[in-house]
Amino acid sequence: MTNKFIVKDSFWSKYQNLVCNVMLPYQYAVLNDELQEEDMEKSHSIENFRIAAGESKGAFYGFVFQDSDTAKWLEAAAYSLSIKPDKKLEEKMDDLIGLIGRAQQEDGYLDTYFTVARPNDKWTNLQEGHELYCAGHMIEAAVAYYEATGKKELLHIVKKNADLIYRIFVEEGKEGIPGHPEIELALVRLYRVTKEEKYLQLAKHFIDARGKDPKVFVREKENRDWTVWNCDPKDTDYTQNTHPVRDETNAVGHAVRALYLCTGMAMTAAETKDETLVDGCKRWWDSVTKRRMYITGGVGNSAPGEAFTEDYYLPNDLAYNETCASIALIFFAREMAELTNEASYIDVMEKALYNTVLASFQLDGKHFFYTNPLEVNPKYAHIIPVLNHVFPRRPKWHGCACCPPNAARLITSLDKYAWHQSGKTVYSDLMIGGTYQPEEGVTIEVESSFEQDGKVTYRIAKENGKCVKLAVRIPAWSKETSIMVNGVGKEIYTEGGYQIFSDLENGTIIQIQFDMTPHKMYANPKIAEDTGKCAIVAGPFTYCIEDVDQKVEVNRVYVKRDSMPKVKQTIDDQIGKVHKLSIEGRYYEETDELYMEQSPKTYPLTLTLVPYYAWGNRQEGSMKVWIPER
Amino acid sequence: MTNKFIVKDSFWSKYQNLVCNVMLPYQYAVLNDELQEEDMEKSHSIENFRIAAGESKGAFYGFVFQDSDTAKWLEAAAYSLSIKPDKKLEEKMDDLIGLIGRAQQEDGYLDTYFTVARPNDKWTNLQEGHELYCAGHMIEAAVAYYEATGKKELLHIVKKNADLIYRIFVEEGKEGIPGHPEIELALVRLYRVTKEEKYLQLAKHFIDARGKDPKVFVREKENRDWTVWNCDPKDTDYTQNTHPVRDETNAVGHAVRALYLCTGMAMTAAETKDETLVDGCKRWWDSVTKRRMYITGGVGNSAPGEAFTEDYYLPNDLAYNETCASIALIFFAREMAELTNEASYIDVMEKALYNTVLASFQLDGKHFFYTNPLEVNPKYAHIIPVLNHVFPRRPKWHGCACCPPNAARLITSLDKYAWHQSGKTVYSDLMIGGTYQPEEGVTIEVESSFEQDGKVTYRIAKENGKCVKLAVRIPAWSKETSIMVNGVGKEIYTEGGYQIFSDLENGTIIQIQFDMTPHKMYANPKIAEDTGKCAIVAGPFTYCIEDVDQKVEVNRVYVKRDSMPKVKQTIDDQIGKVHKLSIEGRYYEETDELYMEQSPKTYPLTLTLVPYYAWGNRQEGSMKVWIPER
Repeated sequence: MTNKFIVKDSFWSKYQNLVCNVMLPYQYAVLNDELQEEDMEKSHSIENFRIAAGESKGAFYGFVFQDSDTAKWLEAAAYSLSIKPDKKLEEKMDDLIGLIGRAQQEDGYLDTYFTVARPNDKWTNLQEGHELYCAGHMIEAAVAYYEATGKKELLHIVKKNADLIYRIFVEEGKEGIPGHPEIELALVRLYRVTKEEKYLQLAKHFIDARGKDPKVFVREKENRDWTVWNCDPKDTDYTQNTHPVRDETNAVGHAVRALYLCTGMAMTAAETKDETLVDGCKRWWDSVTKRRMYITGGVGNSAPGEAFTEDYYLPNDLAYNETCASIALIFFAREMAELTNEASYIDVMEKALYNTVLASFQLDGKHFFYTNPLEVNPKYAHIIPVLNHVFPRRPKWHGCACCPPNAARLITSLDKYAWHQSGKTVYSDLMIGGTYQPEEGVTIEVESSFEQDGKVTYRIAKENGKCVKLAVRIPAWSKETSIMVNGVGKEIYTEGGYQIFSDLENGTIIQIQFDMTPHKMYANPKIAEDTGKCAIVAGPFTYCIEDVDQKVEVNRVYVKRDSMPKVKQTIDDQIGKVHKLSIEGRYYEETDELYMEQSPKTYPLTLTLVPYYAWGNRQEGSMKVWIPER
Repeated sequence: MTNKFIVKDSFWSKYQNLVCNVMLPYQYAVLNDELQEEDMEKSHSIENFRIAAGESKGAFYGFVFQDSDTAKWLEAAAYSLSIKPDKKLEEKMDDLIGLIGRAQQEDGYLDTYFTVARPNDKWTNLQEGHELYCAGHMIEAAVAYYEATGKKELLHIVKKNADLIYRIFVEEGKEGIPGHPEIELALVRLYRVTKEEKYLQLAKHFIDARGKDPKVFVREKENRDWTVWNCDPKDTDYTQNTHPVRDETNAVGHAVRALYLCTGMAMTAAETKDETLVDGCKRWWDSVTKRRMYITGGVGNSAPGEAFTEDYYLPNDLAYNETCASIALIFFAREMAELTNEASYIDVMEKALYNTVLASFQLDGKHFFYTNPLEVNPKYAHIIPVLNHVFPRRPKWHGCACCPPNAARLITSLDKYAWHQSGKTVYSDLMIGGTYQPEEGVTIEVESSFEQDGKVTYRIAKENGKCVKLAVRIPAWSKETSIMVNGVGKEIYTEGGYQIFSDLENGTIIQIQFDMTPHKMYANPKIAEDTGKCAIVAGPFTYCIEDVDQKVEVNRVYVKRDSMPKVKQTIDDQIGKVHKLSIEGRYYEETDELYMEQSPKTYPLTLTLVPYYAWGNRQEGSMKVWIPER
């Protein structure tokens, strides 16, 4: 199968190449325990499958969801084959899929934690056991591999597992819901590729059951004699099980669980045309993005519970902001955009993608953040108890390694986020260069230097008789957008945030200049920690200051109220060409006094800003997104 | 015995009366389980003694240190007898002391947790067991009761216990140190009143052993099969056991433990003339007060571990600032002032006393804060996990109730903090009205309306031949102090922060006017959370803003850079006459946007400030000490 959109972009292709050439081989080596370096947590994820298949001796090692790391890597690698065909990689994947098949049990059961470590405890701990979560990730891998290669072996494996789950939960009526949502969205993907109704029905079953029986995990705990983490089954917010999903008014609990669930809800709503479920999705979305999201697209501020907390509680240094949560927000955004054709969903997707998700990688492709705070001081991060989750530098791997392969699969599948289609209209969501073929006989070539100068050009090629209606997202941040159609200026008129170009002729050239002027942003005064501060943004990028670029440490600086940020220089890093910015500020002279009657003397300095995604790639030091302004 | 200093003060007498008339009867009722109201944790502290004495049936209830609540109440009540003789109270205390005697074991052992719940595990868990801590508090109670009444029964009880401890740790050489320091300072008090060298020797033994053997608690844990909290014995910072106390350069670990230890060190140094120990104390002091203390005198910012963390890490909303830690800082300050005759120690004492300690009480005397943050939003406090320790209102009692009786004993013994004596010089440390008799034939009458208008008058009465040298602390915050001696102005010239008046004649009147002008304070820019903010202080008081006094919620306001605080009105609360202040500021208009290009519009408003100690006494709302300034 061929992708509808082939990415060839000045910014993103470099990053996709980094993932294909560096990150995926690196991650495979880690998952297969071939790399054992200092300060690197062990994975053992592939070895667990060997043990489950009876091909290796030893004990299960890792988290209950260790299988999902391999599944996500497989999914990422599957996408990579469309970017860069690679026979050796494909053989390696086939071998791995063969192993997974041999690790599967006769009845379709597939989860190495239970097969190896707890063979008699299957399905007894849905709250903590992650069987359905791992199943979901393997389904996603199978769908991706099938779509990339046409090969069905993994698809057969996951269908057998999904059939077992369907039998247990739908036919046999076992009570319970997934402790960690994920399988819902995966089942809709499986339905879309197989057209088998039962998978959609199973997704809907899990979504509808959620929140209807808040005591289900209490009973489950009473009926078993083992635990993973001794989670409190009465904390129903944590598992989004307090209210039925259509009635919940706030984004609550574990952020990744919440947003995977929302993605599954939106996908199910799209298939079932269930408007009450769409309304539910919108309530969740508004709660997350209008009251509980950082300016980097980070979500889930609380380290305890990896969770959402309360409206406008968005501390910068404590922020958890798991990489996976922003990825899940991107999934959710895509589905909402498809459901509504509203560009505002993509504006949020863009924010999360260009900032938190990109920041989660080292530019070398071999180091990863799990959490993404907006302010870091290496004298405190990972040292002070409440900041134990904050790393001042990206580690090589994590014991809980959900984020690195999650980011890899997102980057390699970016083509699926750049466009969406509704009826005869094609929506250009992300401004990524490449070739888009929405249907036979229609090609849209996109040339983009968006990240560097805000320019995007669309060239339409179509056969006679084909009708092309193009909708281009005009991001809310672009205050002065100019549009030329075949060299003639066109007035901006957006519908749902998209500029619509109807009845396009063959050969039409649309040139768009987005407004990338760097400027300040301010937070709602209810966000206590950001009062008196500004953040600097330019286009989709949120910027930050790091010690390494300044004359004095960033803790002693502020930005002048009347100064505006300017482009300082263009940098060309492993990702692509972007700008460093500068802004006039002042710094406080050093003092030993703890408290004083006069604010310390200040002196002028020019601050240098880099995009948030690039922080922590040079020498260790403090970083800040929100900068005091005076 | 009579007190050298009888307090009769326009500010403090009301507070002492509140403690004597309301708080002590209330606390006794709680400790004796006579009061069982909603939202009130049970104490059971006195009942535990009855069970240990075999006079009641039942199980031990509470923390391992539950005995110390009763001990601290006894100590506070003993001091109260000097303020307000009370036969019925004294009888109640005698009964309680009789009970404590009957709960003591034959060999002198006294700790109801072990006697009742773990009779075979005595002395096996010094790290967590708190036997020595409880012993220390009972010693302090005994000394106080003896000094107040001349009665020796409790003194005999604690001596018997201290003798047992001396035998075990000094004579028999059992290894180990107190997990929670406290007994060191208590033993020096016992030595001072009994003159028995062994008690000083035992204090010195525990202090010298500390940090010499960082693995002592690891071995202890290996040798026992039970635990209280499963504390990590390798976390030697928590118990101040990483370095010998003379070598430690930073205030580390549990703040109350650290500061009780420091107090014991300073007292031992005073008795042994050990200059290396004095130097050690100064290093601890500097670390605490110059780099790790809030502007309210709060210390120990971290809820996890109730501990110090790192220099300049002083978040306002997360601040733990246990009441007991500020009380311990006051103890330490007094000993350091006695050792050095430096007024700077008392400046810190004053800050902790007038702000954090006073804030720990409701003005009704029946509600208590355990933690004392500098910023509270009731939408988050006690709701968001990292703020679980923060209460927006003072609870009626706490399961861990160390703070309420600790504050009671400090307030009833304030006479012991107002003055110290060194050779022939008497040092007026706190500006409290009353009558001071440093020796036979010398009386200094102090008239003070210090808290209200900064005026303090000293009237000297002395017999012929007596020489009086008076040193009056000039607080560092008093920028314009004026002094009149018998109506004639006198130039300020301080030694160690004290104005010295030598060779005072009988009838001399010294009038001092301290500078109570309210003004702004700024924090060291290294305190990230306070950059761009100011705090308002006046004299010893740190001020705050509360929702209840403002036109809009405090989260939406800032103070103007060029505005100065003014006295708005004088309030007369249960404590005494103090001022409300006002300052010009602006507030942001409300907006639903989360982030925006233009800071929301602002409008002028006049902010009203109340002293920090008074916050949380009216309707629930947000409170802030550090206010954004623009």
